[in-house]
Amino acid sequence: MVTRSRTRVTRMPSRASYERQAVDAILDEAIVSHVGTVGEGGCPVVIPTLHARADEWLYIHGSAASPTLRRAAQAEICLTATILDGLVLARSAVHHSVNYRSVVVFGRPEPVESFNEKRQALQAFTEKLVPGRWANVRPPTAQELRGTAVLRLPLAEASAKVRTGGPLDDEEDYARPVWAGTVGLQLTAEAPKPDDRLLPGVECPSYLTSSHAPGLKSPPR
Amino acid sequence: MVTRSRTRVTRMPSRASYERQAVDAILDEAIVSHVGTVGEGGCPVVIPTLHARADEWLYIHGSAASPTLRRAAQAEICLTATILDGLVLARSAVHHSVNYRSVVVFGRPEPVESFNEKRQALQAFTEKLVPGRWANVRPPTAQELRGTAVLRLPLAEASAKVRTGGPLDDEEDYARPVWAGTVGLQLTAEAPKPDDRLLPGVECPSYLTSSHAPGLKSPPR
Repeated sequence: MVTRSRTRVTRMPSRASYERQAVDAILDEAIVSHVGTVGEGGCPVVIPTLHARADEWLYIHGSAASPTLRRAAQAEICLTATILDGLVLARSAVHHSVNYRSVVVFGRPEPVESFNEKRQALQAFTEKLVPGRWANVRPPTAQELRGTAVLRLPLAEASAKVRTGGPLDDEEDYARPVWAGTVGLQLTAEAPKPDDRLLPGVECPSYLTSSHAPGLKSPPR
Repeated sequence: MVTRSRTRVTRMPSRASYERQAVDAILDEAIVSHVGTVGEGGCPVVIPTLHARADEWLYIHGSAASPTLRRAAQAEICLTATILDGLVLARSAVHHSVNYRSVVVFGRPEPVESFNEKRQALQAFTEKLVPGRWANVRPPTAQELRGTAVLRLPLAEASAKVRTGGPLDDEEDYARPVWAGTVGLQLTAEAPKPDDRLLPGVECPSYLTSSHAPGLKSPPR
């Protein structure tokens, strides 16, 4: 993977990784990411979005009328995805932290024009939210594909940054009788809630009742 | 609250709110936010950070050597916080969505110089992660306060955007025998894990064993 200077992690470089495997795993688990573009007057604009990866491409999508997608299709963007893994409680105030895994991708997205690739991207988005879902739902029509803007960003300039483990206190603070440690955080899925207008007799599919999406922990039964 | 044009939500304006109460509640619950600045060559840079609110100010902090904080102290930034509340499963592929609450804040942060305000900001960060924690830990020294950059951003230009509820399908798709509905997502706290070097006899404090931080659901016991 190319590591141009802007991709090089400056703060806490020991927490950084430029390996595709580390980058891919975080992007595949994170559901939401944040896309930065430069808006009017040169000011940054950061908007939450969904993303889906297929090999060395990262897809984002939205309405063809979205200002962020229009700007993103014409310039360099920065897409950042962060998974929060826990709170880190130290013996001193300043050493409190969080455990996390994040990826920063820089690049110039290309608009996806072919219906075939757009359909594949929408399949990747749907399957990412719930594996097994795509085969179950009405596929997009030509008109829906026209109304959906899909951009693809090469994963050529990407870095991962990860913090794990317990607090790192100053040596003299370890003698303090203060509780220190971590509190793990997990994104947990609740039981599926059927839509009010569900047809009678339609059962909740097995891909939803078993543990499903990556990174999601099903509630204990 | 001022709503300059860049703060006005363009896509799905019905999901937008400019009320301080809505903005504050989301910022107080979200642990991580994403700060956008404009880096070298005019390219956007988006970095995850922690934030803490005190009245009409939003604080961010980090090492005095952080390039993002240095850039942020000299220019307009955009800070975006997003809470993912659930997956929305529709009868057609394109109407799949997520439920979320997000806030976008634009502004020019001011560096906090006074030790007193820096200390108050660090207290806000610590108490936000775990209410009750600050009184329990070693407070920052003068040297630590000097080494920590704290910026404050006025909450004058902020907007919230919220999606709730079930899928919105095309009318003719409601006749399809496809399961549709939502899967709620919750950030859940695991049981506290003590640090390896915890002094013998130090018990886990009650502020950690009861349901604590806003937005965190304790695991069932």
